[in-house]
Amino acid sequence: MSNALKLMVPENSPFVDYEREFDFPAAEVFRAHSDPALFQQWIGPRELTTRVEDFDCRPGGSYRFVQAGDDGVEHAFRGTFHSVRENAFILQTFEYEGYPDVVTLEYSTFEDLPGGRSRLVGRSVYPDLEAREKYLANGMESGMAAGYEQLEDLLA
Amino acid sequence: MSNALKLMVPENSPFVDYEREFDFPAAEVFRAHSDPALFQQWIGPRELTTRVEDFDCRPGGSYRFVQAGDDGVEHAFRGTFHSVRENAFILQTFEYEGYPDVVTLEYSTFEDLPGGRSRLVGRSVYPDLEAREKYLANGMESGMAAGYEQLEDLLA
Repeated sequence: MSNALKLMVPENSPFVDYEREFDFPAAEVFRAHSDPALFQQWIGPRELTTRVEDFDCRPGGSYRFVQAGDDGVEHAFRGTFHSVRENAFILQTFEYEGYPDVVTLEYSTFEDLPGGRSRLVGRSVYPDLEAREKYLANGMESGMAAGYEQLEDLLA
Repeated sequence: MSNALKLMVPENSPFVDYEREFDFPAAEVFRAHSDPALFQQWIGPRELTTRVEDFDCRPGGSYRFVQAGDDGVEHAFRGTFHSVRENAFILQTFEYEGYPDVVTLEYSTFEDLPGGRSRLVGRSVYPDLEAREKYLANGMESGMAAGYEQLEDLLA
């Protein structure tokens, strides 16, 4: 699978770095991140459905979305958009309301590659190493990987 | 000086932790952080004056302020408020526009102490160690210390 998610977890720094290539231009992958109608169709694990309640993807905007599975249990996520540059860059805060005040900064850079392809480069900055471990232990990597596969299906 | 700023810089983690006590209740120190008319009177080094352009201190709000000295050179700072809990907690992003995309997460907890005093406990989370060193090398500690002295003068 040439477009696999690559997740890098440095030992002593509270970061998760990741890369994912797509068989689509940066503009399309950016749009899937910035347009709530698209975003809610791909984000998160396959078994959960997402309802976007608020999604104002511009500098100073904010967002909130809720995910639920067949058991009806809801998980809510919210944050603010600090920076948004069309087709190129999003910097946002991210909080799972089930871990209150454990807020991450999410850097996402979208860059075109030859052949109409693109690469998403991301960094999540956690408030401490424990917070990062909590996210990693709770299926973060598989949830991200499944989300990006759904994103690619959506753009296809 | 019993109310000195205590700054803690852990060796391998991209944080700056700090504490500062005030001879005023948490509610007053919080107000000095959340009310732009007060904020612009104390923030930053003594030799700079601050002009607040935008300051919407509520969850999902944003802010921008500009500092200038006698030389007229302006330095702008901006961010979003992720969380705001009255008299208790602010979590915001922070960017010096002179270091574009080097964005920190700023945790501020306000807690009352006996005798009408209070303590501010802060953590700044940097996107990497280099960014933290850049801020520390550019007078961050002395600027913060001077600001808090001005805050105390303002509340007096």
